[in-house]
Amino acid sequence: MSEKMWGGRFAAGTDSLVEAFTASIQVDSRLYAEDIRGSQAHARMLGRVGVLTASEVEAIVAGLQQVEQEIAEQRLPFVDSLEDIHMHVESRLTEIIGDVGKKLHTGRSRNDQVATDLRLYTRSCVDDLVAALRHLQGVFVDLAEREVETILPGLTHMQVAQPVSFGHHCMAYVEMFQRDAQRLQDARKRVNVLPLGAAALAGTTFPIDRWDVARQLGFDAVAENSLDAVSDRDFVMEVLADLAMIAVHLSRLCEELILWMSAPFGFIDLPDSFCTGSSIMPQKKNPDVAEIIRGKSGRVVGDLVAMLVLMKGQPLTYNRDNQEDKETFFDALDQVRASVEIMSRMLPGLQTRPAVMRAQAERGYATATDLADYLVRKSLPFRDAHAVVGKAVRLAQDRNIGLEAMPLPDLQALSPLITEEVYQVLTLEGSLAARNHLGGTAPDQVRAAIARARARLAEEQSA
Amino acid sequence: MSEKMWGGRFAAGTDSLVEAFTASIQVDSRLYAEDIRGSQAHARMLGRVGVLTASEVEAIVAGLQQVEQEIAEQRLPFVDSLEDIHMHVESRLTEIIGDVGKKLHTGRSRNDQVATDLRLYTRSCVDDLVAALRHLQGVFVDLAEREVETILPGLTHMQVAQPVSFGHHCMAYVEMFQRDAQRLQDARKRVNVLPLGAAALAGTTFPIDRWDVARQLGFDAVAENSLDAVSDRDFVMEVLADLAMIAVHLSRLCEELILWMSAPFGFIDLPDSFCTGSSIMPQKKNPDVAEIIRGKSGRVVGDLVAMLVLMKGQPLTYNRDNQEDKETFFDALDQVRASVEIMSRMLPGLQTRPAVMRAQAERGYATATDLADYLVRKSLPFRDAHAVVGKAVRLAQDRNIGLEAMPLPDLQALSPLITEEVYQVLTLEGSLAARNHLGGTAPDQVRAAIARARARLAEEQSA
Amino acid sequence: MSEKMWGGRFAAGTDSLVEAFTASIQVDSRLYAEDIRGSQAHARMLGRVGVLTASEVEAIVAGLQQVEQEIAEQRLPFVDSLEDIHMHVESRLTEIIGDVGKKLHTGRSRNDQVATDLRLYTRSCVDDLVAALRHLQGVFVDLAEREVETILPGLTHMQVAQPVSFGHHCMAYVEMFQRDAQRLQDARKRVNVLPLGAAALAGTTFPIDRWDVARQLGFDAVAENSLDAVSDRDFVMEVLADLAMIAVHLSRLCEELILWMSAPFGFIDLPDSFCTGSSIMPQKKNPDVAEIIRGKSGRVVGDLVAMLVLMKGQPLTYNRDNQEDKETFFDALDQVRASVEIMSRMLPGLQTRPAVMRAQAERGYATATDLADYLVRKSLPFRDAHAVVGKAVRLAQDRNIGLEAMPLPDLQALSPLITEEVYQVLTLEGSLAARNHLGGTAPDQVRAAIARARARLAEEQSA
Amino acid sequence: MSEKMWGGRFAAGTDSLVEAFTASIQVDSRLYAEDIRGSQAHARMLGRVGVLTASEVEAIVAGLQQVEQEIAEQRLPFVDSLEDIHMHVESRLTEIIGDVGKKLHTGRSRNDQVATDLRLYTRSCVDDLVAALRHLQGVFVDLAEREVETILPGLTHMQVAQPVSFGHHCMAYVEMFQRDAQRLQDARKRVNVLPLGAAALAGTTFPIDRWDVARQLGFDAVAENSLDAVSDRDFVMEVLADLAMIAVHLSRLCEELILWMSAPFGFIDLPDSFCTGSSIMPQKKNPDVAEIIRGKSGRVVGDLVAMLVLMKGQPLTYNRDNQEDKETFFDALDQVRASVEIMSRMLPGLQTRPAVMRAQAERGYATATDLADYLVRKSLPFRDAHAVVGKAVRLAQDRNIGLEAMPLPDLQALSPLITEEVYQVLTLEGSLAARNHLGGTAPDQVRAAIARARARLAEEQSA
Repeated sequence: MSEKMWGGRFAAGTDSLVEAFTASIQVDSRLYAEDIRGSQAHARMLGRVGVLTASEVEAIVAGLQQVEQEIAEQRLPFVDSLEDIHMHVESRLTEIIGDVGKKLHTGRSRNDQVATDLRLYTRSCVDDLVAALRHLQGVFVDLAEREVETILPGLTHMQVAQPVSFGHHCMAYVEMFQRDAQRLQDARKRVNVLPLGAAALAGTTFPIDRWDVARQLGFDAVAENSLDAVSDRDFVMEVLADLAMIAVHLSRLCEELILWMSAPFGFIDLPDSFCTGSSIMPQKKNPDVAEIIRGKSGRVVGDLVAMLVLMKGQPLTYNRDNQEDKETFFDALDQVRASVEIMSRMLPGLQTRPAVMRAQAERGYATATDLADYLVRKSLPFRDAHAVVGKAVRLAQDRNIGLEAMPLPDLQALSPLITEEVYQVLTLEGSLAARNHLGGTAPDQVRAAIARARARLAEEQSA
Repeated sequence: MSEKMWGGRFAAGTDSLVEAFTASIQVDSRLYAEDIRGSQAHARMLGRVGVLTASEVEAIVAGLQQVEQEIAEQRLPFVDSLEDIHMHVESRLTEIIGDVGKKLHTGRSRNDQVATDLRLYTRSCVDDLVAALRHLQGVFVDLAEREVETILPGLTHMQVAQPVSFGHHCMAYVEMFQRDAQRLQDARKRVNVLPLGAAALAGTTFPIDRWDVARQLGFDAVAENSLDAVSDRDFVMEVLADLAMIAVHLSRLCEELILWMSAPFGFIDLPDSFCTGSSIMPQKKNPDVAEIIRGKSGRVVGDLVAMLVLMKGQPLTYNRDNQEDKETFFDALDQVRASVEIMSRMLPGLQTRPAVMRAQAERGYATATDLADYLVRKSLPFRDAHAVVGKAVRLAQDRNIGLEAMPLPDLQALSPLITEEVYQVLTLEGSLAARNHLGGTAPDQVRAAIARARARLAEEQSA
Repeated sequence: MSEKMWGGRFAAGTDSLVEAFTASIQVDSRLYAEDIRGSQAHARMLGRVGVLTASEVEAIVAGLQQVEQEIAEQRLPFVDSLEDIHMHVESRLTEIIGDVGKKLHTGRSRNDQVATDLRLYTRSCVDDLVAALRHLQGVFVDLAEREVETILPGLTHMQVAQPVSFGHHCMAYVEMFQRDAQRLQDARKRVNVLPLGAAALAGTTFPIDRWDVARQLGFDAVAENSLDAVSDRDFVMEVLADLAMIAVHLSRLCEELILWMSAPFGFIDLPDSFCTGSSIMPQKKNPDVAEIIRGKSGRVVGDLVAMLVLMKGQPLTYNRDNQEDKETFFDALDQVRASVEIMSRMLPGLQTRPAVMRAQAERGYATATDLADYLVRKSLPFRDAHAVVGKAVRLAQDRNIGLEAMPLPDLQALSPLITEEVYQVLTLEGSLAARNHLGGTAPDQVRAAIARARARLAEEQSA
Repeated sequence: MSEKMWGGRFAAGTDSLVEAFTASIQVDSRLYAEDIRGSQAHARMLGRVGVLTASEVEAIVAGLQQVEQEIAEQRLPFVDSLEDIHMHVESRLTEIIGDVGKKLHTGRSRNDQVATDLRLYTRSCVDDLVAALRHLQGVFVDLAEREVETILPGLTHMQVAQPVSFGHHCMAYVEMFQRDAQRLQDARKRVNVLPLGAAALAGTTFPIDRWDVARQLGFDAVAENSLDAVSDRDFVMEVLADLAMIAVHLSRLCEELILWMSAPFGFIDLPDSFCTGSSIMPQKKNPDVAEIIRGKSGRVVGDLVAMLVLMKGQPLTYNRDNQEDKETFFDALDQVRASVEIMSRMLPGLQTRPAVMRAQAERGYATATDLADYLVRKSLPFRDAHAVVGKAVRLAQDRNIGLEAMPLPDLQALSPLITEEVYQVLTLEGSLAARNHLGGTAPDQVRAAIARARARLAEEQSA
């Protein structure tokens, strides 16, 4: 009991099961570097405002440096009785530098300390993840450029709709991950706020300089309200929500990769080195990476829910419930980061099978809308044109041929407006090229979109 | 079957149960004004690029105006066979203006049309909700000002921790709702992007001018990729995540109101007009409004989950699954909006009971940290000071008295550093005033925070 | 204020916004029949134990009958000021029969009353849903019988794995829905427990006979603890969890229907009357029903989450939060019920395309495992046999042929154990027939499973 | 590559990042004992049906025994290249016993193998958890017995409602955990079904005897459909749903413990050995265990959501997504099990403070309903009695006294039916004793409920 930093008021020691149940060191040890950086900044500030002497500050900062190295080299054993990373660091510091170590906790509490550590850690994860998303966008842009002219049967309702450029499809993911990165950067503003100085909940009686600490640690702002500062986990919820949306995007991408690689589709192939086989079926080549990432979306959504439930109905200010904020959050950060990275590594090896895709587009009457638009340009109201083409498709299906194989007289029987040049409209290339406006699938538009994306990525990288 | 706009290709009519099952008119009818505004802008643009004649545009715009009025006056009956609001509007338009109405759908699809409608509607809801949050912040600022000097026993772990200003506590909610409003405004950037022009998925063969439409409808940007434009529901997920966080904040506030109004606490009273009674227990006065809002947090979190699950694993581009995006989204928007508004209405009537709060603060040894800090200022390392005070508390508890009632010799027996002026440190007012730094609970700091918040709100209002 | 049944203690009337915000009549009016049945049973019991006279009971029971008819015929207007269905019924009853109506609420509270109503309603929904699931199972069994001999390329990882009977695949869904029905029936035991008699929370001072009421209403048991009885919503959570699992099963089925009907698969066709078209693409025939049901899974999972969040951290006993239990619960019940029913209606019209499926199975080396098993029967250890066949598949792929087209010498070069009769093993029919054990896909086994399922369904129907 | 059991067909080895990303050994190693038991049973069966010789079976069974011991003693190093526990076991077996080890996988696949392992493990966890719940129920029954006569102010809407026995309140939790245990036992029927024999998806060509394996492993049934057997994770979802409900129950209990131990309530005290202190506030004694358990409810609900999302929209049969089923499931099992156990350990040390509770009950007009019932027994209709008492409460509140302190004439002015013996009705003990029916809070009823619970627990234990 004597080693508990809060033992003074207690008549009985902690039950050993309770010690194990309440300890968080196995989870929060990953915050050690942030904890030490925060403590060093706190100590320097205490020195500058006169609460610690210069030599005390020097001893603390140096001692903490040694503790960091010991942890980095896995030389500091973690024990449940020391509860968490904060107590491990402080306890080891005091072993190293003696009683001065006991002064470090002046003017702060674990409540604002852990919030500070977690914000520093989150900020760093957000930055890394934004970089990883940029990298993945770059991979997609490269793929898009390679496949601008490849024709994919674009699907709605999983039915063949209209031909699109495979590169255009790639660029859709560039847009999605762009929003993801933007959301994370917006969240970062709310992550990067210093809670330290809130102490337990009400602030401290020492003449602290919170902006000094903020500047040392690179925070953009100082939390304006101490009660809010220790109880706020919005930044965790918000980043988790962003992660859940990334996970959903990845799950959509994986669904497509899995479908495209299935035998009935056969649109793409993935490299052997990113697939695995079966313990029983010798012919199998499975897109496991995509399946696992798709599966992980459940986990990340679950992690978000966990955090929302955790906070639901919590009265201010700090409640120990919040100790449970880390494991699920770290899990989501880890899963999404790893998924983005392995996707970036896998996609360059994706091979398309243009002939297979083209055949599907042709079988699916993908240019029917072009025929309707053709009739509209000949002054038929769109609704009437739609009806004419619907009948043409039915006729073609009955004969098991494509629209482009329908004899002109048969088409003219449906609408006398149709003339010989209609067959130009019914080609896949013609259909693609005709959608030639901002956001459309015409190869020229896709190339322009690629150029814009490259410029944007370059600009962001240099920012 | 003939009335289905897509019936041409179909040999058999729709099963009547299917018609009812797939119709969305009961849900999406609330988008009618947005749908009409979007169609008018589309028609004007088609006129400007030469796809429609000036007189056709005029007829369509005027006809749509009439349709809007009929719907506003509930004179247009909704039927499942017309599926959705888009078909109701177009069908009625064609009844009114004849065949020209059939030209309206040129160069677009319901896929980009519904996305446009939903974005316009969401933008408007976001703006309204931000305004409602600002209003609620104002209510809290007023309450904070009224109660700056009221002393509340600040709690951590639901145990008395340190005395805080009730006004300081109110300002914590101002911070929370500030982040909520910021998040919504960040989301608005991603909401306010025009999908129209993506048509079904690939763009259109007509020479459309998407920026023309964007300007007419007040969009900040034009969706850069047609495939993404029709399949993207990120803006719904993101706003839902923001709503879930607001709901969690409200649930925390309600938990506190309910606790504070419970008999054992007795910290506050809420007006009779915002409470209800019991059908059986004549003495009851229940904080139903707070309970219901706390309960609604579940619903809003559930709505967010619904949307994430909906999108999980959906291949591009549009799938009919997305029809299910609206009901849960509208529910969350409605619930949160109503909750924020009724809270703004209820809180001004909240009455505090300062004597009760003070008594609790005194019973809870709320100034123990002040005693520890006092010893630190007398050069005891914080950890040692903490231990001394822990023993003092135990002693006081055994005697069932407060720290301020401990005789000086008994305190000095624990630490000779303690002298007569310690009793100043042990008062609630002294404790409050001593936390006098940015974010601290000292009344002067709270007043400064109130002033900053008022300035911020005024600035945002005028923006 | 005077019309509020709890107004006595209140100095001020209810704020009108509060009245609208807290009223539940729009949602709980669907419980009217259960409310009236429960009240009639309560009144009869009060009569039997001597709290009411026989003529009072008669008046109440008859009056309630009239109220029920008025509501059934939509002749009773609903108003927010009367809060909920309970007050509407009691208030109208008192209008009809005078002061005796005021005696109905003796010995009960709305807390146990609403719990009783909701349990009666849930029981009825559970029974209906079990019947609907049985019906759907019957539809699948019929389909299975029709398609026992149809060969489907069985997939794992969306890659062709082994040939299976389409009927066998149908029977997998019979198993899933069997577990769903069982779960609901297990839940029913916990639904069908009478809370009435718990009164507000502690029981009542009147000499009530709870088993009398339970017998009248068909409850299996009487809730053993009054505090639990009014605060328990386990039965809602449990049924919601069961609904979520059904929704997940339906989403899996819909995913398959959508895939199978996509052009690249082309395994099935769904009737025109269960599909819809596109507003822009005249050739489209979309499986909207399946897509919408797949989408609804999100909603039902969200409804479950809503309820879990609602209950999280609620102290005993009744809190008004629980008013929010109904809307999401009713939504889930409605969505799942409608989805099961329309699926039962759609599936009989499903047409398989055996030739397409067979071609896919052949292209996918679906009998590779059979070749490995063949080698094992010739004494090669399974792992070595697996390796041999892996090489054979690679060779066949390089030549773009099936295994069955590999010349014998080439196969023998890989393993001398292979002889002429191997080609029998490599046929799809041979592969199917060889999996001839309980649960296997051999047509004989599928027929046996169909017979067992038919017997089980018949038995359950007669139970 | 050569060490991959499925490498034959692959031209390139696995990317090392992919190997790490797809390996599950860190998570599924906890299934080693189940995996080995399942393999032994499989081998014995293969021997009995003639696929393996008696000596092969003997070698395999003994070799597996050795592998189990090596793993139990942590002597088998885990490596990502061997993917999962199944391959580790088989690979080590083959090292030990040579080529015979390669025959073990005959007639099965990892798909049915992992499903079997997971069901065995789940069954064991369910049994352990049911036992832990029984134990917790016993703890509550003991506490109930100790506190039958202790009067607690029963709350609805967190407002004082009616006095109840503290023992009665304890028994409410016995009911909740009873339903939890029942649900788990119902789920167990669906867990305890053998999937082995489904092989990859379609069954196997070997003449396996699935009931033989089922009997060896204690399964109640054999999965009837091979496709369902490998793709079904209902048992995981169902048990997770049960765990989520337990977690919600625990969160409710913890909320009450935390409230009751807060200073304003002060109803109970928890032992020092189950509480912890503050790093800054020396007076604090925090109910951390209860807070952490309350927090864990979020995690468990999140785990359930993760699994539902994982399964949503998965086509049959096995997809690698399902590898992600374990980590969240194991987390939920661990968290709930640990929470139940520590709660059982903590509760016996709970001390009630009867005087504090009594004072609250008296201040809260807890016997107002008794007064109304008293008037009903004097023939006033309940609604009118309710109104009279409402006025009496208002009067008493204005004077700041309890109802029992109101002079008789003042009461009689409100209703002439009131006479001297009314004061008997207004005592807490009188109120309690009067609720004397099945499920009511009268001490006699609570004692009867305790006796019933004890009998039930004894019966279940001996079952």
